[in-house]
Amino acid sequence: MPQGQPSVVPDDGLTTRQRRNRPLVVVHTGIGKGKSTAAFGLALRAWNQGWPIGVFQFVKSAKWKVGEERALRVLGDSGEGGTVAWHKMGEGWSWVQRGLQGDNATNEEKAREGWEQVKRDLAAETYQLYVLDEFAYPMHWGWVDTDEVISVLRDRPGTQHVVITGRNAPAELVDFADLVTDMSKVKHPMDVGQKGQRGIEW
Amino acid sequence: MPQGQPSVVPDDGLTTRQRRNRPLVVVHTGIGKGKSTAAFGLALRAWNQGWPIGVFQFVKSAKWKVGEERALRVLGDSGEGGTVAWHKMGEGWSWVQRGLQGDNATNEEKAREGWEQVKRDLAAETYQLYVLDEFAYPMHWGWVDTDEVISVLRDRPGTQHVVITGRNAPAELVDFADLVTDMSKVKHPMDVGQKGQRGIEW
Repeated sequence: MPQGQPSVVPDDGLTTRQRRNRPLVVVHTGIGKGKSTAAFGLALRAWNQGWPIGVFQFVKSAKWKVGEERALRVLGDSGEGGTVAWHKMGEGWSWVQRGLQGDNATNEEKAREGWEQVKRDLAAETYQLYVLDEFAYPMHWGWVDTDEVISVLRDRPGTQHVVITGRNAPAELVDFADLVTDMSKVKHPMDVGQKGQRGIEW
Repeated sequence: MPQGQPSVVPDDGLTTRQRRNRPLVVVHTGIGKGKSTAAFGLALRAWNQGWPIGVFQFVKSAKWKVGEERALRVLGDSGEGGTVAWHKMGEGWSWVQRGLQGDNATNEEKAREGWEQVKRDLAAETYQLYVLDEFAYPMHWGWVDTDEVISVLRDRPGTQHVVITGRNAPAELVDFADLVTDMSKVKHPMDVGQKGQRGIEW
């Protein structure tokens, strides 16, 4: 529950309003639960502000996020808040024509295709909040160049907020990001033999 | 992204299905961001399962959760997933008659009134997911007895999941809970003088 009182007032020549509206890069990392869940919770606030939201799921299987996806689609279609565009790598990205290259592409190629689309959308200012779910993995694995990501994010136009989730966020990205939370596992039911369950894990 | 493979199979006489459907007590604690946000993200999954959801906000001001509240109310009213009941301490609990005692009650009394209602709802199995937002504080401050909370949660009937958020979760509660995540702050824009902003902090 932040109280809105910064501990330091920086000498950066910006007004409070300019500083307040500075677009953020947010990273949720660590081995605990809640990284993606908190990112989708943040999307609820963006939706309430009427912002266009773009979700890019950088995972092979779409199994685990069905609840969030359905909820955000219903919200996006409700006509009350912002819009929601949901892109899934698992089924092949929607903008990649099937049969052409999508079906035979490796996960590495698909991850790169996803990042290329994010770059196009950032340049066009398509969304005001980007949820790049599990995007830390392709960077960690070297599929997408972290320095390029940082450079693109640094130079993005307008006030576009970007949230990146995933267990092994590269140190350079953590250094660059404005807001970083590490979700640490204290305990998990799987440690004592419980499997994932409906409504909790998905 | 849990893979669903427990590392230990316990000798507790339960089938996998019984173990899987065991109701959970989940705690989000720590000084970082994302504790409440991840709890509301979890509520999206519960909503998708069609579960009745009860949110109890144990905070004086309702300022910071307007986005989540509006989103969950729209979802609850959409007729597509579960229902959502949202209770706020800030405005006085809805079940406490105004003018009688609600207006003059201290925050300590209000927190206790909130907990009494949670107890009644748990006994009646009113909801399948309870989000007790910021409930760690009244326990930490001694307003609500942690041992009683644990005892009530241990003996609750049916399959009711309970998520408790807040910075200083008591150690006994952490010991008792099934799933605990500690949100650690790595960095936050307020450290460098940025105030909270629309769509991110609320």
